[in-house]
Amino acid sequence: MKKISFLNELEKLKKLVWGKIQEYLPNKFPQEHYTIVREYPQRQGKYFRPGLTLLSTEMFGSQKEKAILTAAAMQTSEDWLLIHDDFLDHSEERRSTKENYCPTLNKIYGDELAVNAGDALHIIMWKMLGDNIRFLGARKGWQIFNKMNDILLTTIEGQYLELDWLRKRKIFITEKEYYQMISIKAGYYTTTGPLQLGAIVAGAPNKELIQIKEWGNLFGCAFQIWDDVMNLTMENEIQGKEKAGDILEGKRTLILIHLLRNCLPIERDYITTLYAKPRTEKTEQDKEYILSLMKKYKSIDFAKKTAKDFSQKAEELFNKNTSHLPNSYAKRVIRQGIKFVANRQR
Amino acid sequence: MKKISFLNELEKLKKLVWGKIQEYLPNKFPQEHYTIVREYPQRQGKYFRPGLTLLSTEMFGSQKEKAILTAAAMQTSEDWLLIHDDFLDHSEERRSTKENYCPTLNKIYGDELAVNAGDALHIIMWKMLGDNIRFLGARKGWQIFNKMNDILLTTIEGQYLELDWLRKRKIFITEKEYYQMISIKAGYYTTTGPLQLGAIVAGAPNKELIQIKEWGNLFGCAFQIWDDVMNLTMENEIQGKEKAGDILEGKRTLILIHLLRNCLPIERDYITTLYAKPRTEKTEQDKEYILSLMKKYKSIDFAKKTAKDFSQKAEELFNKNTSHLPNSYAKRVIRQGIKFVANRQR
Repeated sequence: MKKISFLNELEKLKKLVWGKIQEYLPNKFPQEHYTIVREYPQRQGKYFRPGLTLLSTEMFGSQKEKAILTAAAMQTSEDWLLIHDDFLDHSEERRSTKENYCPTLNKIYGDELAVNAGDALHIIMWKMLGDNIRFLGARKGWQIFNKMNDILLTTIEGQYLELDWLRKRKIFITEKEYYQMISIKAGYYTTTGPLQLGAIVAGAPNKELIQIKEWGNLFGCAFQIWDDVMNLTMENEIQGKEKAGDILEGKRTLILIHLLRNCLPIERDYITTLYAKPRTEKTEQDKEYILSLMKKYKSIDFAKKTAKDFSQKAEELFNKNTSHLPNSYAKRVIRQGIKFVANRQR
Repeated sequence: MKKISFLNELEKLKKLVWGKIQEYLPNKFPQEHYTIVREYPQRQGKYFRPGLTLLSTEMFGSQKEKAILTAAAMQTSEDWLLIHDDFLDHSEERRSTKENYCPTLNKIYGDELAVNAGDALHIIMWKMLGDNIRFLGARKGWQIFNKMNDILLTTIEGQYLELDWLRKRKIFITEKEYYQMISIKAGYYTTTGPLQLGAIVAGAPNKELIQIKEWGNLFGCAFQIWDDVMNLTMENEIQGKEKAGDILEGKRTLILIHLLRNCLPIERDYITTLYAKPRTEKTEQDKEYILSLMKKYKSIDFAKKTAKDFSQKAEELFNKNTSHLPNSYAKRVIRQGIKFVANRQR
């Protein structure tokens, strides 16, 4: 059997979904406003989430074409959330490539115009979800509409939890608190949600949605932990974001939790002081120092191993929970995706 | 015939709509997040827009009870838009009363948590509009869903226009540019849109929606111009916002346009320099100086008269375009509303 490249599969699915998204992106007065609105969608990204939606529809026995509008809305939700997220985190770079350095919208146009453009994209996403009800019929269409409403409301709760840690300068996060947050922001939003949406399109019963969550959450946590590892270890043009930008933004990660648990008290005090500083006051040296501690205490290795463990456990549960489904190509691609998240280089 | 108090009528309608909104506001983990989400809805405001929706439904021959969920969504749209607007404009006070000084959410919790809470409320609003389709049936329900999508996308375009003037420090706005902007942000969002939504609930034909726009736009422009007058002339606890905060925020108003057209060149240079400064660098003296110029050149009087002219013209067109409708109580209240906007003290 030919080895499946998960990224290549996503590329193929991307073309389908992007064609649909383009139908919804206005190109009219005020021209610059809609240029800002179209910018993140045009940069595209991996299409990980809409890809999972299409694959899930196929795995549950329907045609991926039926899920295109649902997947387009999923991707558009990511685009408006990222616009707002980049403002919330004061991020500076998003979806850069080897060829192009891509600053965030807040960096190019300022916080105000960026947030405003995100609102426009948010409104457009609900237009898609409305049209989707007429496309799929009331029963499935409404189930997707309400599911997306729940996914997004929950994701915003996750944003709150992270922002609240930053605001209160709460640096000693327990693993329990950490997993609660990433189960929302990654477990639900990145994997379980898109997979469930695809299953709904295929008419899968509620029982299947519950079973997806069992492996989907582990899958998403593996994705997130590996994402945080990549941020510290990959160059900007590979990850599309600033290397170790998470340290400058003060992001609470499993790596940081491990470091704080294992370093010397004097180092702990230093890290605490440094993380309390706003991004603008942190220097390159600060960043390098934290990075060196994370290496010294093998915190990055710990996170890598944890991500791999999650991915392996997710695969086991995936095999168990989908054993009644035919061994379709889509099913194999999803299995490959589960392996991919804790091995990927982007 | 007993004289109608438009504000008293709004108060009565508010109770109906607020009861419905409350059903949709979560009170759960994370508690503080949902406290932020509920804050602007709880402060309530006048309920001008949802009031117009209910009155319009009655004027077009249906019962206002049918429009409650539509009106609740209209009010919720105002609440999330205001949260984002207060961040965009860096406003400091919102819906204060004589008893309570009410800072904006961005002032209390910071820009990030405020914008994030606005997103939650935005998502909740689409839940209402989804439920509304099941409540009103597909034909009217979808028409309202799509109308609201158009109203909001257009409102965000208006936000862009205003933000763009600020960002480019464009202070010499033509009247044409100004009316284009307020026709969107007030003409459509504040009056025409809510009135059209109410008419749709009553099953009014498309021709009626077009006729509403003719007087609705003048009505909304009168509302906005008078609003800008009030900002400069009323105390904080009356208007619920900081007196002359518009000057500190650099808002481009008809009053400013009139002033720049009529003042001496040396004054014009001074105003231009002052408006180019960020809010934080403007002093109380700066504000008082601009205010004194606006009085000296009778720019506030000019705006007052313009608002009254718009209101009068709106009433004439209202009488003409609704002459085929029975002279119902709702119709009389709307007429009173048209008079009210260019006379009101809040």
